[in-house]
Amino acid sequence: MKTLVELAQKAREISGVRIYKKNVEAVLSALLKSGDFWEVVDMADLPVPAASGIVRALQEEGLLFIDDEENIRLTQKGLDMVRELGIETFVDYSCRACEGRGIPFYAHIDLYREFLQLTKDRPKAIRDYDQGSVTPETTIARVLFIDSRGDLRNKDILVLGAEDDLTGLAVALTRKAKSVLVIDIDKRLIDFDNRVFKELGIDNAEAKVWDLRNPFPKDMLGRFDVFVSDPPETLPAFRAFIGRGIATLREEGGVGYFGLTLRDSSVFRWRDFQISLTSEFGVAITDILQDFNHYITWDYHTETKAAEVAPVKREPKTIWYKSAWYRVEVLPGFKRWNEPISDDVFYLDEEGSTT
Amino acid sequence: MKTLVELAQKAREISGVRIYKKNVEAVLSALLKSGDFWEVVDMADLPVPAASGIVRALQEEGLLFIDDEENIRLTQKGLDMVRELGIETFVDYSCRACEGRGIPFYAHIDLYREFLQLTKDRPKAIRDYDQGSVTPETTIARVLFIDSRGDLRNKDILVLGAEDDLTGLAVALTRKAKSVLVIDIDKRLIDFDNRVFKELGIDNAEAKVWDLRNPFPKDMLGRFDVFVSDPPETLPAFRAFIGRGIATLREEGGVGYFGLTLRDSSVFRWRDFQISLTSEFGVAITDILQDFNHYITWDYHTETKAAEVAPVKREPKTIWYKSAWYRVEVLPGFKRWNEPISDDVFYLDEEGSTT
Repeated sequence: MKTLVELAQKAREISGVRIYKKNVEAVLSALLKSGDFWEVVDMADLPVPAASGIVRALQEEGLLFIDDEENIRLTQKGLDMVRELGIETFVDYSCRACEGRGIPFYAHIDLYREFLQLTKDRPKAIRDYDQGSVTPETTIARVLFIDSRGDLRNKDILVLGAEDDLTGLAVALTRKAKSVLVIDIDKRLIDFDNRVFKELGIDNAEAKVWDLRNPFPKDMLGRFDVFVSDPPETLPAFRAFIGRGIATLREEGGVGYFGLTLRDSSVFRWRDFQISLTSEFGVAITDILQDFNHYITWDYHTETKAAEVAPVKREPKTIWYKSAWYRVEVLPGFKRWNEPISDDVFYLDEEGSTT
Repeated sequence: MKTLVELAQKAREISGVRIYKKNVEAVLSALLKSGDFWEVVDMADLPVPAASGIVRALQEEGLLFIDDEENIRLTQKGLDMVRELGIETFVDYSCRACEGRGIPFYAHIDLYREFLQLTKDRPKAIRDYDQGSVTPETTIARVLFIDSRGDLRNKDILVLGAEDDLTGLAVALTRKAKSVLVIDIDKRLIDFDNRVFKELGIDNAEAKVWDLRNPFPKDMLGRFDVFVSDPPETLPAFRAFIGRGIATLREEGGVGYFGLTLRDSSVFRWRDFQISLTSEFGVAITDILQDFNHYITWDYHTETKAAEVAPVKREPKTIWYKSAWYRVEVLPGFKRWNEPISDDVFYLDEEGSTT
């Protein structure tokens, strides 16, 4: 029988992404809980290609089989191995009240209701721009989180390249910010926001079409107290969204919020991001909350690389794509990065799969 | 009237610690909510000397006064400034169910009850070793958090230099770890743990007296899957606890948990820690949960530098000292640091005050 280290090595060869022993363990632990591949990805906190590589490696070794290309089941040999290694079923103790975020969306129920009402006809997530909307509960929890950190009231706030979540709209709805500027590449979202701002007479908020691959004009730099974003997890996109977000901050003490997921990037990539944040850009990371952002499964799921590399045909039945919520604070001497970015690998690389 | 930047500069001169505009804002926002200095420190998320310096600077400028050395109140001039700057009252949306941790202690109520019952006569926190115990709810939430990440069951776990919280005991009580080793400098705690282990017949757990300033013997290196700690926030102590904790991990994918607070170190220091973690030690940070750890105010509070530098004589009435909960994962090529550490500034430096 292969060891976990050998299985990890095999999964790495199959998938071409970085995988280690602990990841194989996590998939096995998740498989004791569910036979749904997408739930397994969620529990194991892995990029889809990595989870898929592990499932395929386990399949080739006769440790699991896949029913009708739908359900994954451990074989007797798989169950024996799991027992021998002392791997136990995945457990989830997350809070039912706040969905594990630490801040419940219903703490400001009026804001939640107004947001739901106004966004009934929101534009649907489309594939062109790697969109995927978070749940309304996520969007409101984000705003309450930002407020509870003193980063909302009377602040100049920039929401960049993440308006499929309508976070900029929700921030504006609080009527607490000094100003809100939303920029996004998708004109549908920009028009949607501006229409709501106009209807409600919110005159300190505006939305503009912008492609973040281009550098900001000078007047955008050093203009905001807070930025909010949700970049694709490639290194170029990270620079375009987060590097540029940092560049728009007025001064030390300025704050950035963004989502980063382990579904489209590995913990290896995360370290690269963290080195870049702390050493290059000059920020301190104050918060990382896993599984804060819950994404509604996008209509274009079947067209994605995720669906293609998955070892099953089954589509996701529940929310499986989640991301962590980062908060960073810029310190004296922070770097204002604002270079152009080329198109290559902007949305997708070997670890990503959901665009 | 002085600007916030000038007030920050003045507070920096008074306190000798790094302070910027945003910190002054945070103190003013907190003062709109409470006149209790310790609650203000908590809300503003600042080192005690920093919060104290800000309060004193505001006092000297006639923006606040202190009633009977007890309650802090903004003056009319202070209130005018706050209104003019648009600073609003601190808001707290944290979840009442899980105390904002995202994981409620009562998710495993039997463990909580057994822990409470067994620790009724636990040793009291003493000053010699910078002790301060977290609440039992915190200890149990830590264990459930560790379990939910797949870092408990069948793992070899080291709890180092943090047993005033009895986290090692709580881990052992789950009977789910493969082995638990607790090391601490305080013989009272070690004896307490060993007595409980013996009484309950838990034979895979043991506790040993150890001074973390000394390097580990070779047989401790590379021996564990998970370490848990709660270091003082000085740079030497960080290396002694976290650097050495990392050195005990068996292989890539190994995991560390520890508390770090902004009450005894600034966000500047946090960045130094984060650069050291990611760039030097070779780990990725997967979680930072602010205010996860709640500390019971220690009996020796009045003897601390915190009490001495505080602008009030009033003692804390509620839990004011909290820390963030970090989880890190070591990646291939991680560094096993294991040098001796000298006594100097081990427990206390210019930002710390609670030892």
